[in-house]
Formats: sequence, structure tokens, C-alpha cells
Amino acid sequence: MAKDKKLVEAITSMEVDFAQWYTDVVKKAELMGYSSVKGCMIFKPAGYAIWENIQRELDRRFKETGVENVYMPMFIPESLLEREKEHVEGFAPEVAWVTHGGLSPLQERLCVRPTSETLFCDFYKDEIQSYRDLPKLYNQWCSVVRWEKETRPFLRSREFLWQEGHTAHATAEEAEERTQQMLNLYADFCEEVLAIPVIRGRKTDKEKFAGAEATYTIEALMHDGKALQSGTSHNFGDGFAKAFEIQYTDKDNRLKYVYQTSWGMTTRLIGAIIMVHGDDSGLVLPPMIAPVQVDVIPIMQTKEGVLDKAYEVADTLKKTGLRVKVDDSDKSPGWKFSEQEMRGIPVRVEMGPRDIEANQAIIVRRDTREKITVSIDDLDTAIQEVLATMQKEMLERARAHRDAHTYDAHNYEEFKDIVTNKPGFIRGMWCGDEACENKIKEETTATSRCMPFEQEKISDVCVCCGKPAKKLVYWGKAY
Amino acid sequence: MAKDKKLVEAITSMEVDFAQWYTDVVKKAELMGYSSVKGCMIFKPAGYAIWENIQRELDRRFKETGVENVYMPMFIPESLLEREKEHVEGFAPEVAWVTHGGLSPLQERLCVRPTSETLFCDFYKDEIQSYRDLPKLYNQWCSVVRWEKETRPFLRSREFLWQEGHTAHATAEEAEERTQQMLNLYADFCEEVLAIPVIRGRKTDKEKFAGAEATYTIEALMHDGKALQSGTSHNFGDGFAKAFEIQYTDKDNRLKYVYQTSWGMTTRLIGAIIMVHGDDSGLVLPPMIAPVQVDVIPIMQTKEGVLDKAYEVADTLKKTGLRVKVDDSDKSPGWKFSEQEMRGIPVRVEMGPRDIEANQAIIVRRDTREKITVSIDDLDTAIQEVLATMQKEMLERARAHRDAHTYDAHNYEEFKDIVTNKPGFIRGMWCGDEACENKIKEETTATSRCMPFEQEKISDVCVCCGKPAKKLVYWGKAY
Repeated sequence: MAKDKKLVEAITSMEVDFAQWYTDVVKKAELMGYSSVKGCMIFKPAGYAIWENIQRELDRRFKETGVENVYMPMFIPESLLEREKEHVEGFAPEVAWVTHGGLSPLQERLCVRPTSETLFCDFYKDEIQSYRDLPKLYNQWCSVVRWEKETRPFLRSREFLWQEGHTAHATAEEAEERTQQMLNLYADFCEEVLAIPVIRGRKTDKEKFAGAEATYTIEALMHDGKALQSGTSHNFGDGFAKAFEIQYTDKDNRLKYVYQTSWGMTTRLIGAIIMVHGDDSGLVLPPMIAPVQVDVIPIMQTKEGVLDKAYEVADTLKKTGLRVKVDDSDKSPGWKFSEQEMRGIPVRVEMGPRDIEANQAIIVRRDTREKITVSIDDLDTAIQEVLATMQKEMLERARAHRDAHTYDAHNYEEFKDIVTNKPGFIRGMWCGDEACENKIKEETTATSRCMPFEQEKISDVCVCCGKPAKKLVYWGKAY
Repeated sequence: MAKDKKLVEAITSMEVDFAQWYTDVVKKAELMGYSSVKGCMIFKPAGYAIWENIQRELDRRFKETGVENVYMPMFIPESLLEREKEHVEGFAPEVAWVTHGGLSPLQERLCVRPTSETLFCDFYKDEIQSYRDLPKLYNQWCSVVRWEKETRPFLRSREFLWQEGHTAHATAEEAEERTQQMLNLYADFCEEVLAIPVIRGRKTDKEKFAGAEATYTIEALMHDGKALQSGTSHNFGDGFAKAFEIQYTDKDNRLKYVYQTSWGMTTRLIGAIIMVHGDDSGLVLPPMIAPVQVDVIPIMQTKEGVLDKAYEVADTLKKTGLRVKVDDSDKSPGWKFSEQEMRGIPVRVEMGPRDIEANQAIIVRRDTREKITVSIDDLDTAIQEVLATMQKEMLERARAHRDAHTYDAHNYEEFKDIVTNKPGFIRGMWCGDEACENKIKEETTATSRCMPFEQEKISDVCVCCGKPAKKLVYWGKAY
């Protein structure tokens, strides 16, 4: 079967060594490079272009909900970071410190932002005076730094790119509404654009963000059965407002604290795309996010008219809004096919002298390798159809894979058996006691991923201690 | 005359105190805020939206010339920064140093990038092996840090946003061509989009970039007669390639050094827009870069049907691609007019019950305050015309202002008289000796802005020392 044929011998098979397969794809698809700065990565053009498409689409969706972009300084004075107790305890151990500016030591050291709650709060304190100034719906696109010990391309690095939204509201209800709105926006984006199905839920207190009242999360399952937290949205209540004295005069002329949220998505989404959709021939990009959607590969391109026709076809396709390139390099067609597959370009168009004579071309779909021959006149319609089908089926396939790798555990023996033998999500009831979370983590390395919004009762008792259960939890090993 | 009427009393007149006028506009138009981090600014939504439009248009133009975006780490190890001698001497005194990661001191300190030549070179060293890998045409959008002592919003701050392009070529000719191509791209962008006329030229050796063989620049004249360097493009020759050992195997199978360029534009362009186009009522934004182009202001908006009509008109205009908002706040129309003017929105549409009854509206142009009454059916065409005319006339007016403030000096007495009494560009011949540049700078604070590409001979002798002249130079006091 063509589908199982491994065209590029140079990469490790994902069944043999998933981690090595991942590293191979990142390298061979030229997504990222290593730098001389330990733990920091270089986004190469193919990797950065995916991020640009993610940014464009997310930014459009943010703005539709009234969000405006701003830019805050990258430095946070130590005293500002320390203002909210839980927050500083969560982040201080992993920040980078600037101690010298030019040739002089600084009076107060500055950390490079690991996240910007404290800066936004410091700003809002002066910016918000009256109910007329609310809500504030600000977002920024920037890089942040967390001094991680172990790093992996896209998934964990000392510097990464993200967006962080920070909002302030007059009421607790409005803040809660915005927290859930953004989580749902993230979930819809993942499913509609990245073709990645996600579980929407709430983090346990143990796993929530430092300083938050509630953290909501979307959790995706990778091909190897590990979970990836793909976006989070936090409700801060008025905790930061009290620490930073962010008050406004309400319509009733009384001074009140604001309620705040923050929410973020990062370049680890690119890692998710790789690990959900990739195969042994390399990357498979969902058409909606692919920087190049169509790779036109001329066959026998030195024959008169072949290259010209390829350019002509590409120009016609571009005019319909498709993102198209022509591979006119002097490599062999087979090599070009392998490269197109490695880079995950959703569709290739093969076109040789005989095809051109017959006014036709061959379309090959990246994920299934399905081939169809179509008239050059109908090429744009045919490709649009293939891309739409592919986008839809990639989501369905990922969902089927996730569902097939989601297991119910009714007691601890079952739980441990699944963790050991069946990589995937484990659904298990929980008593609400952090001790059980800790025990599970220590003994199995699985963590509580979330308490899903769609709660079910699959048992009456906690999967760990056997006491009465309060919540259904998704558990899993995670990146 | 309506044009001279000062609608908003709160800001300082530019004729009284230009520096204070500038600060007032930045604050009142809500472009930027001060942060708790000394020397670092906050880009508020109105300011950041201008930057987003600059980015979108520049990025499009870059990509049309084959440039691809990447992202490099924000940290540079000290040993890497030190690799090229002139470069480190230029930047080391003004960088911020990270000395601790998490709770531990670093083995080697890292500076926060003041610019990324060294990182790109370190990357190219491995990335470029063969002539097939050339040219590399990479760019990145990011923030950089320079530990400045004196700071001013947009013009000089410890952190600022920019793009930095870094290219590598097989030949010196190709590198030179790219250096000039990007300078011309910058100049066209300034003139066509920002309506800012610029002088294109080459920096003297004294003023060129640390490590460059040649630096090209575009220089604009602000309303107060001071110059602003608005974009630079550097030809490095093979200097960095030799320091970093960036070699490729050419078609003749010989190992050769690459030739490199870099080029950048920054958020100081927003400062240029303010200082070239602004007036005593605030900001005046060129239509092409304005985040909001049309402010629809309903008159007597509580009357039935007025607000609905305003929304309807706005929706119709949006569909033609215009960027439109409706000011439906509960402020008075006069207050809304002042705000629209302060924020520099190019056109406002006034629409009251009688106008609506007569199926008409009033268009007011921000720069000239010209009013026209048009049928609501023709509103989109009329506004498009007004915006196009305004864009064109803003450039013409800025060019006329610059030309009226450009003076020829034939000897040092004349030069000193102009510097003292006539703010603007001074054109004066130069012998080529750095001693004359130094003397002029010390005695008058004017610096050589550039040797314009369009050379003329306005005298045979150096304006400073009287010895035979080699080049026409634009001199001026600069931001």
C-alpha cells in the first residue's frame, strides 16, 4: 500500500522511537535549528511561517471579540514580580536576571518576563479609574523566558513565542465569562484550523496557574499517547487587583476592585501539529495553516514548455487565493516528492509533457497519498475540494485516534495497568484530595490533565483511594 | 481661519515648545505610556496599531523581494558578541547583561540582543555550505535592548521594536545590490505610505554602523527642523564572514567567504509620523497607515434613527475596505471632534437628524479641516477620494516644508549662522577629513547626516576647513 511506503529513509520510524522521529522531522522539515545559546532555538523560515499563520488567524479571532494589541516592556523589576505572593513563588525559581546595564550594575535587578501579569497590573493601576475605563481587553505577542533545565524543540525551551491576553472587568461574572470565552476560542481554533481535537476542562488546584482562582485548559493527545496542554485561560478573581490596588469608581460612586483574566497560546502548538498529524514520511500540515498549500512539481522540466506551463498553472492557482510554489530546482522528481512530503505540503501537482499535451495534471494528497487526474481547467476547484476534504478528515482521524486511546479506569489496579500498557488519556474519578494526585504522579508519572466540562460519573469512588468521588478527571503522561 | 484654530487647549503649541508638544501628543493621543521600568515604554493600543500597519506593509514588500522571516534567540553569549572587533566595541557599552538563570549564576554571561548580526553569523556558519545555499534573505521582527541614558517616547528607549534583515550572498556585487535595494524599499515606503520625504545617502565612516563597510541611510526632516535617521542598510563586505568563518563551496569547487548585509527600521518611525505631520490639535495620520481612517460621529444621537443610520453607514463603508469606527459614546459632538483630531483620524463624518433626512453627511478632512457635504449614497467614493488627496498632499506639504528648510552653506561663517538661526538641513561640501566632522559637531552640535546619492557641487572647498572638497554632505541637528 502506497500509504505505508516509507519514501524517505533518513528519518526514524515513529513506531521505533517516537522522540527521535520528532527530532528528525523538526530537523529534516527545516522547522528549527539549534543555537549557541543553550536551551534557545532558532525558528527557521518553514517553522516561523507556520507561527505567522497561527498568529494571523488567532489575532483575527481575538479582535472580533474586541481585543486590542499592546506591547509591554520585557523587563520586570524584582519588587514588582514579588507583589503577588503565589505568583512570585511560581515563577521566581525559573527566571533570567539582568543585573548590569551597560558597564554599571543596576540598583534593582530585573527579570526577563516569564509572563506579564505584574506589568499589566502595574499599568492597569493607573489606567483604570472609572467604570467607563472597563473592560480592558488587551493582548500582546512577544517572547518570554523561563530557565528550563530540559528543553525540546517547540515543546520546551528557555525562550518561546506566545501571546498573552490580560483583561480587567467590573464584575466577577464578566471575568468568568471572558475566561471561558477565550478557552472556547482556543478550542475552536485548534479544531477548525489545526485539525486537533481537544478536551476542554478545568485544572485541579495543584495544576492551576500561580496566582489564579481557576485555570481552564485544552488538552490534546499526541500520536504516541502523551497529552499536550495546548492553551490555558485563567480567572484571577480580584486577587491581583488587591495585591496591586487596581480600583475603579463604579456608577454608584463606590470604589471597587476589578476582576481579571489572562490567557495564552504558544509556539508549542507547532509541536502539537507535528505530533498529531505527522507520519513516517515527515510533517503533515493541515491545509488551513500550511504556509505552502500546493507544490507544483514539473516532470521532465527541461523539455520545452514544461516549466512555463508549471509557472502558468501556479499563477492561476495563486489568483484563487491558494498558497503555491513551483519546485523548479534541478533535483529529480522523486527527490522533490520526498521533500514535499517531508515538509508536509498538503497537495502536490505532478505535471509532465504528456500530461500537458492532454491538458491534465495529477493531484496527490499528502496525508492519504490519494492520486487523482484532473483537467488543468478544473485544477483550482479540484485542489480546493481536496484541501477541504483533507482538513476535515485530518480532524476526524485525530479524533478517532484520541478516542481509541482514551481508557476508563475504575480502580487503582486498572489505572496502573493502563498507564503501563496503553498510552493515552485515562478517565478516572477523583475524590478531590491532592494527596491522590500526588500519589498517582509519584507512582505512575501520570498527572491530572483536567476536570472536563462535560462531566460523567463512571464510578462512585476515587480511582486512587476508593473514597467517594467528586469529579471525573482526565489523567495522562504529558509533554 | 478654521485651520489655525486650536480646538484642544490642553496641549502645548508646537511653536511654543516643540518637545513639550511632542510629549503632549504622545500622551493625549494615547500612543504610549510610561512603565515602572526606567527607560522602557508601554505601547498602548493606538500606538501599537500604527506599528502593526507599518509591519504589515513593510513585511509584504520584503516578501515580494524574496525575504523570509525567522526568529533568533534574544540572548547573545558574551564570547559570541566579541567575535567581530568593531562590532563589540560599538555595542558592549550599552547592552543589558543576564548573569543568573533561575537561582544559579550562569557560566557565561549573556547580553540581551542590541542587534543580531552575531547570532545570524553563527547560524549562517553551519547553514551555508554550498553556492546552492545562497543567497540567504532572512528577516526578523523582534525587540532589542540598548541601555540608553536619556530616553524619549518612540525616539529613544531602552527597549524598542524593529525588524532586522540579514542576508548572505555569493558575491560583493550582489551584497551591494541588496543593500541599496533595501534602502530604496525603505525610502519608497516612507514616501508612499508614511508621506514622509527622505534624503537617500551614505553615512560617513564616522557615522557608519559598527562593523560595516558602508552604511546607507534615509534622513527625514521633522517639523522643528531637526533630522531623524529613519532607516539604515549596511553592506558588511566579507568582514563578518571572515570573523565567523562563513564559507561556501562555489561552482568552481573553491571555498569562498560570503558577503553580507543587514538593514533595519524601528518604532521610531512613529515618532517621525508625529513630528512630520502633527499640528496643534494633535496627531495627523497619513490615511494609508491610520488604524482608523474614518470616525463616524452622530449628532444628536439620542434622536430616533440617528445611531442606527450611523451604524448602517459605517457598515457600508467597512465593506469597501475602509477602516471605520462609530463614536457612540455619551460625550458631546464637540468633544468627539477634538478627540478625533487629537488621535489623527484622517476623516470624520458628521451626521445629524437633518442630514439624514436630506440623505447627506458632512466629511471633514483632518489636515486641512476642509468640509464637504455629500449624498450618503456617494459617501464611500467621496471618502476614498478625500483620503487619496490627503495622502498625496501630506507628502507634498512635508516635501515643501523640508525644501524650505534646506540651506546651502559655502563657508564656515555661513554654516554657523544657519545652524544658529535657521533650523533645518544644511548642505555643505566636505573635504573627507573626520577632523572637520568632529569640529563641526563639537562647535555646532550638527552632525553629518549623509552624503546624498544625488551629488552636486555647490562649492569647490570644504565648508569647514576650506581645503578642496570631495563630497556634498547633508548636515543637521538630529534626534
